[in-house]
Amino acid sequence: MGFLDPDRLLPADPATRPLARRLYDAVQGLPIISPHGHTDPRWFAENAPFPDPAQLFVTPDHYVFRMLCSQGVPLDSLGVPRIDGGPVETDGRRIWRLFAQHYHLFRGTPSRLWLDHAFAEVFGLTERLSPANADAVYDHIADCLSQDAFRPRALFERFNIEVIATTESALDDLGWHRMIRDSGWSGRVITAYRPDAVVDPEFPGFAANVAALGVMTGEDTATWGGYLAAHRNRRAYFKGFGATSSDHGHPTARTENLSAADAAALFAKALAGQCTADEADAFRGQMLTEMARMSLDDGLVLQIHAGSHRNHSAQVLARFGRDKGFDIPTRTDYVRGLKPLLDAHGMDPRLSIILFTLDETVYARELAPLAGAYPALKLGPAWWFHDSPEGMRRFREQTTETAGFYNTVGFNDDTRAFCSIPARHDVARRVDSAFLATLVTSGRLDEDEAHELAHDLAYRLAKQAYRL
Amino acid sequence: MGFLDPDRLLPADPATRPLARRLYDAVQGLPIISPHGHTDPRWFAENAPFPDPAQLFVTPDHYVFRMLCSQGVPLDSLGVPRIDGGPVETDGRRIWRLFAQHYHLFRGTPSRLWLDHAFAEVFGLTERLSPANADAVYDHIADCLSQDAFRPRALFERFNIEVIATTESALDDLGWHRMIRDSGWSGRVITAYRPDAVVDPEFPGFAANVAALGVMTGEDTATWGGYLAAHRNRRAYFKGFGATSSDHGHPTARTENLSAADAAALFAKALAGQCTADEADAFRGQMLTEMARMSLDDGLVLQIHAGSHRNHSAQVLARFGRDKGFDIPTRTDYVRGLKPLLDAHGMDPRLSIILFTLDETVYARELAPLAGAYPALKLGPAWWFHDSPEGMRRFREQTTETAGFYNTVGFNDDTRAFCSIPARHDVARRVDSAFLATLVTSGRLDEDEAHELAHDLAYRLAKQAYRL
Amino acid sequence: MGFLDPDRLLPADPATRPLARRLYDAVQGLPIISPHGHTDPRWFAENAPFPDPAQLFVTPDHYVFRMLCSQGVPLDSLGVPRIDGGPVETDGRRIWRLFAQHYHLFRGTPSRLWLDHAFAEVFGLTERLSPANADAVYDHIADCLSQDAFRPRALFERFNIEVIATTESALDDLGWHRMIRDSGWSGRVITAYRPDAVVDPEFPGFAANVAALGVMTGEDTATWGGYLAAHRNRRAYFKGFGATSSDHGHPTARTENLSAADAAALFAKALAGQCTADEADAFRGQMLTEMARMSLDDGLVLQIHAGSHRNHSAQVLARFGRDKGFDIPTRTDYVRGLKPLLDAHGMDPRLSIILFTLDETVYARELAPLAGAYPALKLGPAWWFHDSPEGMRRFREQTTETAGFYNTVGFNDDTRAFCSIPARHDVARRVDSAFLATLVTSGRLDEDEAHELAHDLAYRLAKQAYRL
Repeated sequence: MGFLDPDRLLPADPATRPLARRLYDAVQGLPIISPHGHTDPRWFAENAPFPDPAQLFVTPDHYVFRMLCSQGVPLDSLGVPRIDGGPVETDGRRIWRLFAQHYHLFRGTPSRLWLDHAFAEVFGLTERLSPANADAVYDHIADCLSQDAFRPRALFERFNIEVIATTESALDDLGWHRMIRDSGWSGRVITAYRPDAVVDPEFPGFAANVAALGVMTGEDTATWGGYLAAHRNRRAYFKGFGATSSDHGHPTARTENLSAADAAALFAKALAGQCTADEADAFRGQMLTEMARMSLDDGLVLQIHAGSHRNHSAQVLARFGRDKGFDIPTRTDYVRGLKPLLDAHGMDPRLSIILFTLDETVYARELAPLAGAYPALKLGPAWWFHDSPEGMRRFREQTTETAGFYNTVGFNDDTRAFCSIPARHDVARRVDSAFLATLVTSGRLDEDEAHELAHDLAYRLAKQAYRL
Repeated sequence: MGFLDPDRLLPADPATRPLARRLYDAVQGLPIISPHGHTDPRWFAENAPFPDPAQLFVTPDHYVFRMLCSQGVPLDSLGVPRIDGGPVETDGRRIWRLFAQHYHLFRGTPSRLWLDHAFAEVFGLTERLSPANADAVYDHIADCLSQDAFRPRALFERFNIEVIATTESALDDLGWHRMIRDSGWSGRVITAYRPDAVVDPEFPGFAANVAALGVMTGEDTATWGGYLAAHRNRRAYFKGFGATSSDHGHPTARTENLSAADAAALFAKALAGQCTADEADAFRGQMLTEMARMSLDDGLVLQIHAGSHRNHSAQVLARFGRDKGFDIPTRTDYVRGLKPLLDAHGMDPRLSIILFTLDETVYARELAPLAGAYPALKLGPAWWFHDSPEGMRRFREQTTETAGFYNTVGFNDDTRAFCSIPARHDVARRVDSAFLATLVTSGRLDEDEAHELAHDLAYRLAKQAYRL
Repeated sequence: MGFLDPDRLLPADPATRPLARRLYDAVQGLPIISPHGHTDPRWFAENAPFPDPAQLFVTPDHYVFRMLCSQGVPLDSLGVPRIDGGPVETDGRRIWRLFAQHYHLFRGTPSRLWLDHAFAEVFGLTERLSPANADAVYDHIADCLSQDAFRPRALFERFNIEVIATTESALDDLGWHRMIRDSGWSGRVITAYRPDAVVDPEFPGFAANVAALGVMTGEDTATWGGYLAAHRNRRAYFKGFGATSSDHGHPTARTENLSAADAAALFAKALAGQCTADEADAFRGQMLTEMARMSLDDGLVLQIHAGSHRNHSAQVLARFGRDKGFDIPTRTDYVRGLKPLLDAHGMDPRLSIILFTLDETVYARELAPLAGAYPALKLGPAWWFHDSPEGMRRFREQTTETAGFYNTVGFNDDTRAFCSIPARHDVARRVDSAFLATLVTSGRLDEDEAHELAHDLAYRLAKQAYRL
């Protein structure tokens, strides 16, 4: 275990820790179900070695580089590529030294937990990263990465991943997934249908994207009917590569249930680039309801990831592009936003809509009451900024009393940082074991129930909710 | 105690639990003061046996049936009556078996605490409900219900209820209350004045309701002056049946303090069915201020229960009607909403306005600062979805530092589930004892003060704030 | 220590308390850095004795008198001066007795912690204040106040204050600060630039204030350019008296980045008294961006204290004026509000903008993600209503995982209650020690890191962030 505390994240008080430990011990070795995330299918298709420690841990991880940025470290110096192709740091060792010099910034953050876990458990390091050992650690990891045992498929197997879902654009040809399938490798890597580029009128190139969707599907996507048919077509295609869900990242939780004529008119405006901001939001909201309807036919689970103000910094967007750590949560209204969709289909138990939020104030006020009533709704786990020990604890404390455990869906790692996957599931299993143990020692749950729940939360509910 | 943990909800840590236990022991046997709730006065008037276990625990309890509904159990199958009178399940045993099959859904919820407490303490059961023992439990409870000791008045006495308030519409003739009074029974059952049907322009039949109010009171409720006089008349009538409070369940916390002419004009619009949604909200807000003014004369405490989005599901409303578990909390603004009322009467120490919220974000930000300054304001306890161990803890943690304890009013059970009343008060007494003990062991309170406060919170403050 | 628990605010559980104690012991004696507050520089200039116990602890402290007011004690009876100069209680002993009679109201509040700490540590009292000992306590404190050891400078030195910042209006001549400097006393008392009176079009006398600013600086403040120059002039003047920061108390977090022409036009409207409420808010927002720009030149740290609904009670404002305990927090949107300023200057690491909030819901949702990304942003400590054990704990639990510790700035006492300063810093040091110890015992931090952080949070970060 090296420098990791074997009892980390378990309750300190001596009356609760032993039970939490027993609960955790029983689930810590379960296979990983990863039903939503952003790993790159190319890794598993090509199975090439990861390039270097900085490329693995720093440059692609917005949790990591935004923290350094917040303390004045320029993103260029961490190798983050510029939109204009201008020069950025490319020397992995120099990037790594910068990272190690600032490693104290991660004290108290989940990034620190994930990094330490990967350093210790994946790479066998035995002391905390520091400026003093930066070079030695770099050399050690680089050496590991040159070995076959650290290639993507070997790590996948070592991580005990039973199934992992990646996320692809509706316009993706799923070539990497095809290559994985054709390779005969036994690892189960599935896709998920993410149509932002063709359902968001404000997405760069929306009209061209919709036209491309038409080409891909042979449907006339200039018409509302053809456009919907094209979605159905792509969803079926994605199902052919294992998809069991679609995923929607909208700035608000708004839904609409317009008449076909009104929806067609709004679609025409969107294609013409004439939507106001409000109309664009309405169109995205209409598409959530359409996706729910398609789901009744094809069974894809509908994930709604609402409430991120994307690309908050104009400067960072202009220089480095999207997904660079400057997506900021906003207040989100699920009660009014979801009503049109719920009035249409919320009572249908065949439907599985999984809600995520970046606004923790809605856990107890909105999400738990909604999911604790509507058969179609389930709650996704604590997301993104809240995918952390305190965040997960707040999620359980604020949702369980109204929604119970069985309207939640286990854990999502939701990451593109491959080596953090075991760490993230481990954190979730520990935090849930701690929460369950606390319920038992405070007389709110029996121990046999806690054991059953620990297994449900770590494994079974994710498979069930995502139909895996 | 059967399967109940005698130390449930007390802090697990060995440095705090013994003190929490002492605090709880000193208050656990105090009489129950129930100043706000929804029990049926008919029970106490007729004193007939409760019909069967399902009718007692499942079919009327929206906490219970909405949770089963959320997992796909149709409300019909739980006996919830349909608006159209169509067939629903009537076999109590079949309903009970469904309930027992899904009892695991309540793990971690307050319903589970209340149900287990009632099963153990009221009915003497010694093991957890399960599919395996469903029939035996049903038979046992059914057998109890056939005994005189389980009739409403006997349970009232056994529950050690010193006083309980029901809630009646302004248009109710209080016939059951009259029957209770005329019976000579010593139990103190009082009413409370709930005028939603005649103060909310959006209430079904508003104009007809106002006309009926005129008939009942002999006032000309077609005029603003007559309408106000009718309220004063009904409030006096309710006081005659013990009422010490009025109660107002509004979608927002908006108040208004219009001139008499403007108020009269708005009232005329409301009667004519011509209010916009905003005007209807303004009229409700005006009536809160009017009720505060009447309160200065007649002394009724003013309860404001704001922020529920009633009947969120159009389908459920159409099929099963109101109060079927689909009321969802919303964000509520007390700072701007209450200002007109507070500018008019907030500094008057004769007034007692008790605020409730479904939006926990306002505890520390709005309610505690308001109640910690205005003499007219007090904070009601954690309400509805938040009437739970974690909810109550958050209430204390987030209100006490700014409002103290003495701007709060003890506990309300606020329930129509009669057998849950002792359980709910017990939960409150335990959570408060735990909170107080934590203050003592962290050096923020002396033990003698904690004992005094435990008694205040369990008993004295409710009597004082509600003038009982 | 008298009646103070030496382990107060440290975790009760025996596995964590000893470590928390070690962390606290190492920082409890560090000098006090007080970079933001409202003590009166006149105290240190004149070094006159404080008048009497009521004038020291009750009459000027809005935390104290609003709590008594909330329970019906008239502000007049506590000596709070009336706007109209009408009679109020002036007998310190009578005020003190009222205070002592109501001392139980403060149970569970931070005021109680601060008062008890001052009573015990500053005045050597050995028992809790009560109606029974009110007179004796009064006499004891009054006797102390007559001694030289209790004059402001002596207390300043005894409190181990390394540096304290007061806050003065842009229109203040800093005469008391000059007198302190000229006195040769070694105590470091600095000012801070608070320009509300000349940047807020809704401030009473705005146009006259701006004219006065012109007179003070020799700039033509009737023009936009002259007005900005006058600010630069005053900022330099304040720097001459030690200022390292400006401070801005706005009702919202709105910023603007208008063109010079648009800003000039808006300024002209403001001077003419023709701004709408929205335009006034826009002007204040523009001035935050202007202040940030000036900061790039002169290095003053920019503090934004947003979200207070000032003077909520019209009655209290009319009778007693501003700052009388009726400022109520409101919801505040930092994500949209700060974007114009951040788009202009947020990526500039030379800038230090310190954000404060009264809306705790933004800690995890908005402030930590913003400060965890933008180099220009830091988070001020839990503020005002949240400057309390539970409030500080929530601040750490909700900001650390995303922003880390190093985007925070240590503690501000932010008080005008001089004797509470050691108490407030002590509370912060204890709560942070408790939080850090919890991270260690839950395996999230190593003990050596916790010790370094305890020192950083108690001392170093405040000096660094405020450039002291």
